[in-house]
Amino acid sequence: MIMGDVAAARARDLDREDPLASYRDRFVFENQDLIYLNGNSLGALPRQTRQRLAEVINDEWGASLARSWDERWIELPVQAAETLAPLIGAAQGQTLVTDNTTVNLYKLTVAALQARPGRHVVVTDNDNFPTDRYMLEGIAHEHNLEFRVISTDPNDGVEPELVRRAVDDDTALVTLSHVAYRSGALADMEFITHLAHQSGALMLWDLCHSVGSVPVHLDDLDVDLAVGCTYKYLNAGPGAPAFLYVNARLRDVLRQPIWGWWSQRDQFEMGPSYRSAEGMMKFMTGTPNIPGTVAVEEGAKLIREAGIDQIREKSIKLTAYLAELAAEWLDPLQCELATPSDPAQRGSHLTFHHPKAEQIVAELAQQDIIADYRTPNRFRFGLSPLTTRFMDVYRATAATRDLLQTRNADV
Amino acid sequence: MIMGDVAAARARDLDREDPLASYRDRFVFENQDLIYLNGNSLGALPRQTRQRLAEVINDEWGASLARSWDERWIELPVQAAETLAPLIGAAQGQTLVTDNTTVNLYKLTVAALQARPGRHVVVTDNDNFPTDRYMLEGIAHEHNLEFRVISTDPNDGVEPELVRRAVDDDTALVTLSHVAYRSGALADMEFITHLAHQSGALMLWDLCHSVGSVPVHLDDLDVDLAVGCTYKYLNAGPGAPAFLYVNARLRDVLRQPIWGWWSQRDQFEMGPSYRSAEGMMKFMTGTPNIPGTVAVEEGAKLIREAGIDQIREKSIKLTAYLAELAAEWLDPLQCELATPSDPAQRGSHLTFHHPKAEQIVAELAQQDIIADYRTPNRFRFGLSPLTTRFMDVYRATAATRDLLQTRNADV
Repeated sequence: MIMGDVAAARARDLDREDPLASYRDRFVFENQDLIYLNGNSLGALPRQTRQRLAEVINDEWGASLARSWDERWIELPVQAAETLAPLIGAAQGQTLVTDNTTVNLYKLTVAALQARPGRHVVVTDNDNFPTDRYMLEGIAHEHNLEFRVISTDPNDGVEPELVRRAVDDDTALVTLSHVAYRSGALADMEFITHLAHQSGALMLWDLCHSVGSVPVHLDDLDVDLAVGCTYKYLNAGPGAPAFLYVNARLRDVLRQPIWGWWSQRDQFEMGPSYRSAEGMMKFMTGTPNIPGTVAVEEGAKLIREAGIDQIREKSIKLTAYLAELAAEWLDPLQCELATPSDPAQRGSHLTFHHPKAEQIVAELAQQDIIADYRTPNRFRFGLSPLTTRFMDVYRATAATRDLLQTRNADV
Repeated sequence: MIMGDVAAARARDLDREDPLASYRDRFVFENQDLIYLNGNSLGALPRQTRQRLAEVINDEWGASLARSWDERWIELPVQAAETLAPLIGAAQGQTLVTDNTTVNLYKLTVAALQARPGRHVVVTDNDNFPTDRYMLEGIAHEHNLEFRVISTDPNDGVEPELVRRAVDDDTALVTLSHVAYRSGALADMEFITHLAHQSGALMLWDLCHSVGSVPVHLDDLDVDLAVGCTYKYLNAGPGAPAFLYVNARLRDVLRQPIWGWWSQRDQFEMGPSYRSAEGMMKFMTGTPNIPGTVAVEEGAKLIREAGIDQIREKSIKLTAYLAELAAEWLDPLQCELATPSDPAQRGSHLTFHHPKAEQIVAELAQQDIIADYRTPNRFRFGLSPLTTRFMDVYRATAATRDLLQTRNADV
């Protein structure tokens, strides 16, 4: 109890010293007692986004109606993308906000295969997010390619040495996640991209679990392609459009397979034949979702205002604090960290392994502590630097400890 | 002038007798003097949709956060589709709200080609909406197919006899629009579907310009596949998700190419290999846009409440009234109807040909009369039965006449 009080006092100190603490007020939280550790799944609602969405719906749609297409909507997929670009280290003209992550993965993968004719192997790992693996499996099936799957340790993340062994001069594309959705392991983007390039393959990174919480340097690391969603650390809301990145040296060469009117050069000429747009618009398909695209722009603005390096710094402090409490309170109760222990090798969520992980998540939810379950036998605590308090980490870990103690005593 | 007064009195009478007149109050119109004849491009904002979107954003996202996925969001793509299904004559289990029209066209076309192996021709017409033509051209290019394009008269719509000549036992798929985006011509869905089937081809209808204004009977006419957008007569807002229809006899056979986690049988098992979902969820890709899907559901509810047959009845009265005024006022001024003159052969917009069509649209907009321009030299008046008043038709046609008179006098 005394130890608990000391730990609580420390959490209060950490919150007091946190230079980003005030950003939590920039979000809507109806219930301040809610401990929300699932911002790695769906980020919270920024107040400014709520305001902008009301304007888009009431004024731009309701009052201006179709005139808003010309007045501002038509530029939004590029405009929102350029706002987001610095967060992933992309110079102008290489990003686009459109469709969902799966559709963007599909477009860029088919485009990449055409840019590597004669090569018939695509590589990913078994720890990649399901949609990435399934999409690639589907394309391998459709295009009669070899689908090569690296075995990654579910706690430690992708091992570059295994990538080196998997790629060869028959490899067209390597697709991996920057931060693993399950373990939170942070891949060595620089080294793995280098390995892919050494074999002449293109490298496509999925940034879903890193963008907005980990600085990304796509241009500096000469990455070819990337995709990511916007509803996690970018806080753009459920099913907001995703983004894609195409390195400028490939942009004019690649051709995506879904030839829609929004990717046509003279969109309103409506001419007889398709001519691919110049610049990033060539990666559009059909009509983009406007409220969602506006929310992406607002979410990216907020992250840029706080500063991605400051966010990373707080993220490291949050995960370190959680790891420290967990080592003391959860590890002795058969609840083990399933995320790399070195903060430099992980993103902004920690995962714990326990045989009753699914029940633990359900019981925490009854106490208004929101985490999530992932197979097999793991629960995740997502620490979203702009909204998660150190006191949230303290209370959630203490509650988990108390649950486990009761459960172990019951057995 | 007297004639004008008589015509105005008639418009007032028609509005007074209109059984759907009160539905206009179910929409947000800040400026009641605005004459909005572009609901065939972007439908107006229903009050109930505004209310539901505020709830989705503030309560479901803002307050309930990721818990809303389990509580209600995950069912929405099917639930919204089932609400919409009666409007297109589809029994349960054959529709889905997801992605945009272009992506849905792509998925269904690739799936259809796999269901017709050995056939290497795809057929459309040069009057089809650009995204349909471009998408098909792209797939023909990717899959090395023959892309056969019927020449359709830009005023009269697709001629069944030309479809008969274009299809043969090498044809895999015929794709056409139910209502032509430019002329408003209504295709003979029953006869053309029959012609496609006679040759063993599959038939895919684009319902973008008919759904919500023209009753559609997909099941009764044994249509194979259909897609449509939701932001026109369904009033679901800019870039809201589109829908797709797959006839039950094909649903379990077809396989779409974009294998995303939302189309996986056990989505949260996140297992090693893709297994296609049963039912319509197999046509999903990635995470759906939730606010947009909610807006589709609300839009479809409103159309169903008013009754699609009543809507069609009013649509026919509106287009007949406009055609009558135009014959008297516009035709003598070299502004000719570019839409079939028989109401049974057209949808809910009329198109006029004039050499200065683009300027006319711009000048009408200065008087708060919103129409739109389409190449070559045409402007469209979209009459959306739940929001367009007969008086709107009167005023817009009179204003066009006055503009043309001034312009002709200037020359």
